[in-house]
Amino acid sequence: MSDKRIRDYHITIGELPCGPRNAITDVPGVTVGHCTIDTPEHQTGVSVVIPAPHNLFAHKLPAASYVLNGFGKTLGLVQVDELGSLETPIALTNTLNVGLVHDALVDYTVSRCAKEGIPVRSLNPVVCECNDSGLNHITERVVTKEHVYEAIHNASADFEQGAVGGGRGMICYGLKGGIGSSSRVIKLDDKEYTLGVLVQSNHGRTADWMAGPHAMGKRIMEQGGPAQAAQNLPKIQPADLDKGSIIMIVATDLPVSDRQLRRILKRASVGLIRTGSHLGHGSGDIMVGFSTAYTLPSDEDAEVIQVPLLNENSIEKAFRAVAESCEEAILNSMVAADTVTGYQGNTRYGAGIFLENL
Amino acid sequence: MSDKRIRDYHITIGELPCGPRNAITDVPGVTVGHCTIDTPEHQTGVSVVIPAPHNLFAHKLPAASYVLNGFGKTLGLVQVDELGSLETPIALTNTLNVGLVHDALVDYTVSRCAKEGIPVRSLNPVVCECNDSGLNHITERVVTKEHVYEAIHNASADFEQGAVGGGRGMICYGLKGGIGSSSRVIKLDDKEYTLGVLVQSNHGRTADWMAGPHAMGKRIMEQGGPAQAAQNLPKIQPADLDKGSIIMIVATDLPVSDRQLRRILKRASVGLIRTGSHLGHGSGDIMVGFSTAYTLPSDEDAEVIQVPLLNENSIEKAFRAVAESCEEAILNSMVAADTVTGYQGNTRYGAGIFLENL
Amino acid sequence: MSDKRIRDYHITIGELPCGPRNAITDVPGVTVGHCTIDTPEHQTGVSVVIPAPHNLFAHKLPAASYVLNGFGKTLGLVQVDELGSLETPIALTNTLNVGLVHDALVDYTVSRCAKEGIPVRSLNPVVCECNDSGLNHITERVVTKEHVYEAIHNASADFEQGAVGGGRGMICYGLKGGIGSSSRVIKLDDKEYTLGVLVQSNHGRTADWMAGPHAMGKRIMEQGGPAQAAQNLPKIQPADLDKGSIIMIVATDLPVSDRQLRRILKRASVGLIRTGSHLGHGSGDIMVGFSTAYTLPSDEDAEVIQVPLLNENSIEKAFRAVAESCEEAILNSMVAADTVTGYQGNTRYGAGIFLENL
Amino acid sequence: MSDKRIRDYHITIGELPCGPRNAITDVPGVTVGHCTIDTPEHQTGVSVVIPAPHNLFAHKLPAASYVLNGFGKTLGLVQVDELGSLETPIALTNTLNVGLVHDALVDYTVSRCAKEGIPVRSLNPVVCECNDSGLNHITERVVTKEHVYEAIHNASADFEQGAVGGGRGMICYGLKGGIGSSSRVIKLDDKEYTLGVLVQSNHGRTADWMAGPHAMGKRIMEQGGPAQAAQNLPKIQPADLDKGSIIMIVATDLPVSDRQLRRILKRASVGLIRTGSHLGHGSGDIMVGFSTAYTLPSDEDAEVIQVPLLNENSIEKAFRAVAESCEEAILNSMVAADTVTGYQGNTRYGAGIFLENL
Repeated sequence: MSDKRIRDYHITIGELPCGPRNAITDVPGVTVGHCTIDTPEHQTGVSVVIPAPHNLFAHKLPAASYVLNGFGKTLGLVQVDELGSLETPIALTNTLNVGLVHDALVDYTVSRCAKEGIPVRSLNPVVCECNDSGLNHITERVVTKEHVYEAIHNASADFEQGAVGGGRGMICYGLKGGIGSSSRVIKLDDKEYTLGVLVQSNHGRTADWMAGPHAMGKRIMEQGGPAQAAQNLPKIQPADLDKGSIIMIVATDLPVSDRQLRRILKRASVGLIRTGSHLGHGSGDIMVGFSTAYTLPSDEDAEVIQVPLLNENSIEKAFRAVAESCEEAILNSMVAADTVTGYQGNTRYGAGIFLENL
Repeated sequence: MSDKRIRDYHITIGELPCGPRNAITDVPGVTVGHCTIDTPEHQTGVSVVIPAPHNLFAHKLPAASYVLNGFGKTLGLVQVDELGSLETPIALTNTLNVGLVHDALVDYTVSRCAKEGIPVRSLNPVVCECNDSGLNHITERVVTKEHVYEAIHNASADFEQGAVGGGRGMICYGLKGGIGSSSRVIKLDDKEYTLGVLVQSNHGRTADWMAGPHAMGKRIMEQGGPAQAAQNLPKIQPADLDKGSIIMIVATDLPVSDRQLRRILKRASVGLIRTGSHLGHGSGDIMVGFSTAYTLPSDEDAEVIQVPLLNENSIEKAFRAVAESCEEAILNSMVAADTVTGYQGNTRYGAGIFLENL
Repeated sequence: MSDKRIRDYHITIGELPCGPRNAITDVPGVTVGHCTIDTPEHQTGVSVVIPAPHNLFAHKLPAASYVLNGFGKTLGLVQVDELGSLETPIALTNTLNVGLVHDALVDYTVSRCAKEGIPVRSLNPVVCECNDSGLNHITERVVTKEHVYEAIHNASADFEQGAVGGGRGMICYGLKGGIGSSSRVIKLDDKEYTLGVLVQSNHGRTADWMAGPHAMGKRIMEQGGPAQAAQNLPKIQPADLDKGSIIMIVATDLPVSDRQLRRILKRASVGLIRTGSHLGHGSGDIMVGFSTAYTLPSDEDAEVIQVPLLNENSIEKAFRAVAESCEEAILNSMVAADTVTGYQGNTRYGAGIFLENL
Repeated sequence: MSDKRIRDYHITIGELPCGPRNAITDVPGVTVGHCTIDTPEHQTGVSVVIPAPHNLFAHKLPAASYVLNGFGKTLGLVQVDELGSLETPIALTNTLNVGLVHDALVDYTVSRCAKEGIPVRSLNPVVCECNDSGLNHITERVVTKEHVYEAIHNASADFEQGAVGGGRGMICYGLKGGIGSSSRVIKLDDKEYTLGVLVQSNHGRTADWMAGPHAMGKRIMEQGGPAQAAQNLPKIQPADLDKGSIIMIVATDLPVSDRQLRRILKRASVGLIRTGSHLGHGSGDIMVGFSTAYTLPSDEDAEVIQVPLLNENSIEKAFRAVAESCEEAILNSMVAADTVTGYQGNTRYGAGIFLENL
């Protein structure tokens, strides 16, 4: 994978400062892991966002989801919305593999809880997906339990972006998409809080692509073959429709209620739209978020607990943070991605080369 | 109005203990006021549930709504759902009067805030309604600002039930409906909390009416004229359709989030259905609730506050409390109501006489 | 399984006429199949509701869902809600097996489509669940692809009810629950339409159980050991909490939009509550429904089609039909169920014996 | 008002062709009327969107709403969402006047129905609002019944845009906002359909304003006093927060279900965000839409009707149409607006002058 990020092309998104890694893992405790499958037939994999090192089933986190376009197969949102909490890592994979990955997360959690002496009879994994059938022989569902375990094993605060893990087979604005991330730091009562976004980007019509102020998609489509040839740019197979989906995972240590978190998630759409999406029919655009501000222990004895809560009048800062982070995460997913050739010889190009001569 | 309550007919609803008044005003700080309009043409009015004596605009309360059947005109829910807070008293009136009552609540709050030196530029009154056109010349919209002010002025922890205020023209299961209330007390961590319900009942098909275990509706319909004549019971004009709406207001001092409160509100439907409703098409069945556990000051300086929060594992007690309170509140609304004759000479009978010989 | 139905105990639910089978399969084209796993450790299985004999992926059906209590793991609702359509059979199984059953439905549909020359790159199976850990060693997830295929293979308009398929390990009001069904026939414009419900019942506190007008739960709890011993009734292990979930599948040939269908689904709660539920915290109560009135072909050329639509003013009949069908389906699930002994020697009794001497 | 539109500044939004008026009234039958209040203290008014010349209560239209940010007081959405239909004109006014305007719409409809011999006992007006307290003495609620009647009387397919009617006191990106409109024409099965948007714009932080590809807000903020002085541009009072709200009304003759219409409404957010909004906390961003493809007669005898329905696979065209129309409508609202000085001498400048030298 490329180590490039959109800032390396002198494109700065927004006004707020980033965290030290400019990634979702700037939120303390959050780690990300990948397992990538790279064969001639299969360009796919699984990524996991692990909200905290502790056993999440035993100490759940406040959580929420927002379905911007429900033409997707993400699993586990019914309970997240009802209870406002998350009890497993979040997995990201391909559309037809969500069942097996769901089962793998059950397996993993049941095993871990057994070791720690925690009884489990019910469990709600969250599994997100985008459709990678453009580069992956998707109906074969090659992501199995072992890959999920490996992704969990690989999880770290430092993680690769681009065409890795669940992002391996993604196509974004007709170029290579994948995993991207970014973060912002905001201050409340003179204390710093972090909000980070990780996306699995697989959406967008080529002509619509915006990289910050640059109408890159229009440029690519208009220059067509000749101009690009002159620059030694490859001739791409443009995406004519905004379809394929994007998953946006939001992590924060802000003390937000699930309602507040859902309001924040909604503003990830601002970042998405700024990169050129118009929320196409075939693109299941889904946000899932959690807060690490406190945990909800399964065996809590107290019937009333005390929790911190964001003053609603200060939520604006989080709105800006998520909009900026999401926009930058999408662009990072594109520039971090290498060119990939997959199923049936299809090729999608990393976006970096198109940004070289800005 | 009758002082009778359903317990006076030896019908006990549920298992939990009631508060001292067995009314929504058992929740400390809550008061209820009515203004009743009683003329040959107009049987209508307005009732207000005042969540607390303080200025609600300056110190908002956690709140939520749940729309069980949205065939209704209740105003103000968009903001309640977005922000999870309430900033005015809740008014209950007739369907076509919600606009004028909304304006009256603006007038009242602006005036009060002016006196208290609190600037107001935006305000979200909550106004609920049922259709009283069976007994009231509804298109004339006779409830005006003065009536709303009077209802607010009359507000007290002790209040009448039955055919009063906004409940004046209500019809419930073909009998007289109106305002009814009930409460339950539950314990968490050895501390007592109260949950109370106030309904404006205007729904139900006569044949479906259940008073606790007694299939009263079936009895009334089957005995028809003769048997009722033998008991000197009046011949009623039965309701053949479940329409007309019911408003269910839930107050509690439980420290619940808006999500938890919405879950609780949903269980008011259990009480409603136990009285015989099947959530008819034409019945706008709507719940609005608030918690007095803490306030959200408009001018709060702290960007993060500390709040109490109900342990989700203990929410079951509140579910039972709201189901029982709502069922009993509906039955109270019926037995507390006197017989009323209104617009075009229509008459609806108080339910009490039908329960005398159980 | 017992051939008994609640009507065999002289308990008639509601007023509307049933279809010839009094089951969801009275809706033309609908079939139901089971695969039951019955070992000392495992009392579980899978049931499928197949909405039509044709390839559902190629010709989708109008569909909707309603989440009454989202403390559950049902998969596939995000897309059903967004697109208002269903493209696979609906499977019902145990909580921790939804991932594997989801994958099996992908496998089945991909295979079938391959045979029929229909390309598949994306697919949204609907998999529902209740928690059978009281009788089944649930963490072992023994329901596999083969069981799903067998359930599909077994599907028929005539099907067993009670402790079969996905209902094998269910517990309802402390007694044996499982699969139950019922139907109602209504007339519109002099034409007959059918609405049927199938439930997987696993909810309820024993003391709350109502069988029509009979407060059976109270009777069981009050009579305690002695009275039941006198009648040679077994001493049951009562359920003290309303938890465990219920799935309610609604099929109809009524020409309803997804919005109308969702309104109908909501009224299944009336039937549920009439059997004694108060929508307990731990009970994921979920409805999924579809209409067979017309199909939505994936390869439809016309950009505007003509469809039949129920006049909203006539929806009341469907509301009553679903309330009655759901109540009766739940009671049927209980009386059709044999006594089952499962994991760790736990036993749950069929409800029939308790109704013998009414 | 200025006759200028954004296209007069050589800024073309999107790719699709406009209707002949490039306004919501390109949808056949739709008219728009204003009544403007212009006094030293009061800069406010009311606008109405009249979906069709016929009596809407007697022949309702398919309709939907979408609440993007519910920090607003729009009235009437509960029933629109439940029944998927609209039965009155839609009014747009200031925040504290919604009650009186609601009552005026009741008055108007009751009167009209009385003349036409149509009984009315229940009615659901839709009244939208933004907060104009920056230019209007809002607490005085000066918009009364007479103004609403006049706006209805003035309704025409040709209507003014800018600082008129309900848009009189609006502030958009710190400049003058108000009423703006635009339309797009799309083809389905070789037949032309129109989708139009009308906005009441009152949102946005100055620095964020985008006019097509031009970062106008940044330019205004960066150039500060000197550069603007050089161009004889006024020094504006910038908006530092995205608050104040925007209402987006969508009309179309596309045969869409309410679910499809809601999906389309959601994409109006694309247009909004492209003008620079990030859906600020204090901005109640609300969409209401209707289709004129067919009507739903109140006295329809048939219990099943036939209706046209958009093939979901073709909805993409409508998504683009609404995104482009909404973006252009917002920009039109700004360039059509004259400079207005109102309450407490506050002045907001028309946007046109800032676009002169692009």
